[in-house]
Amino acid sequence: MFASRPVVHPMEVAAPAPANPAQQQQPQPQQPPGVLMKDLPGMPGTPTGLALRVMQLLLAAVSLAVMSSTSDFASVSAFLYLIAAAILQCVWSLSVAIVDIYALLVKRCLRNRRLVTLFFIGDMITCAGTFSAACAAAGITVLIDNDLNICSENHCSSFQTAVAMGFMCSFCISPSFLLNFWSVASTRVLAA
Amino acid sequence: MFASRPVVHPMEVAAPAPANPAQQQQPQPQQPPGVLMKDLPGMPGTPTGLALRVMQLLLAAVSLAVMSSTSDFASVSAFLYLIAAAILQCVWSLSVAIVDIYALLVKRCLRNRRLVTLFFIGDMITCAGTFSAACAAAGITVLIDNDLNICSENHCSSFQTAVAMGFMCSFCISPSFLLNFWSVASTRVLAA
Repeated sequence: MFASRPVVHPMEVAAPAPANPAQQQQPQPQQPPGVLMKDLPGMPGTPTGLALRVMQLLLAAVSLAVMSSTSDFASVSAFLYLIAAAILQCVWSLSVAIVDIYALLVKRCLRNRRLVTLFFIGDMITCAGTFSAACAAAGITVLIDNDLNICSENHCSSFQTAVAMGFMCSFCISPSFLLNFWSVASTRVLAA
Repeated sequence: MFASRPVVHPMEVAAPAPANPAQQQQPQPQQPPGVLMKDLPGMPGTPTGLALRVMQLLLAAVSLAVMSSTSDFASVSAFLYLIAAAILQCVWSLSVAIVDIYALLVKRCLRNRRLVTLFFIGDMITCAGTFSAACAAAGITVLIDNDLNICSENHCSSFQTAVAMGFMCSFCISPSFLLNFWSVASTRVLAA
């Protein structure tokens, strides 16, 4: 687990006490560089962040299960792409949820700059993947349902459910993505 | 034009000179709250930002023109959605490009918090719209081309060109979106 370090109280690492009393007399900013001012709900290491991850995991798993249960998903590339994106989303959300649970259990602060950047990049990739897959599958579903009217020969309801779950999953991951980007931007500005 | 204000030198509004010399002795931050530290290239009011807007406008216009030139785009909802998203993207990029040109000509600073938030929301909407439309149209194009192999009856090359231009347009708008969100986050943190 990449959040694990042999430090019991990681807050001291993020904000070390000045060993030299002369340093205290220098005009320092209120927060040391690299540490966020506020812990917004939804960021990694918060209960809201964990709840978002669990919701992403559940929605992606439902989308994957519903789409896999249809017999003819393999004949359409967009449905295969949705399945691949849902699997990637499940793996990513499960990994970050485990890190979040660990951080909550040991009361560890996850607002490290590298870790937040890693979360931001992973969220960006999985968010773009899930959203694009849901859009492509939605295009096919609308084509089958509205444009061609061949729902009687296809599993339209299953396709629609899987697409809706994919969209809800991407809407669930966008707060995590934006909050992580917010953390990265804030950390860089405070460190500048 | 919403960036217009009756001030000839707007930089003085963003960083007013202290009228009272006694204020200079107080420990003030280097920048007043609500003003960014750095003017990153690509932000509104910079030449790179204007170049990004012009590229978005051109790519969306090409996508719109190519898709409209096909005879059977109206039979597929995803292609209609791509045309609608390209029109919205053209209007938005043209508007912001005009504001950028005005700001560059009169050397006006566009890093106002409300203006940056407006740009961020507009970029988010148009970026999501263009990207989802391109994904949906790509799903249909791949279905026609690879899955069904009925390219001989359709304008596959036109569809592929329009989809590629749509994707390139959404890739062009994502730096603007992320930089505007960076500005919003930085401004909020500095103001806090």
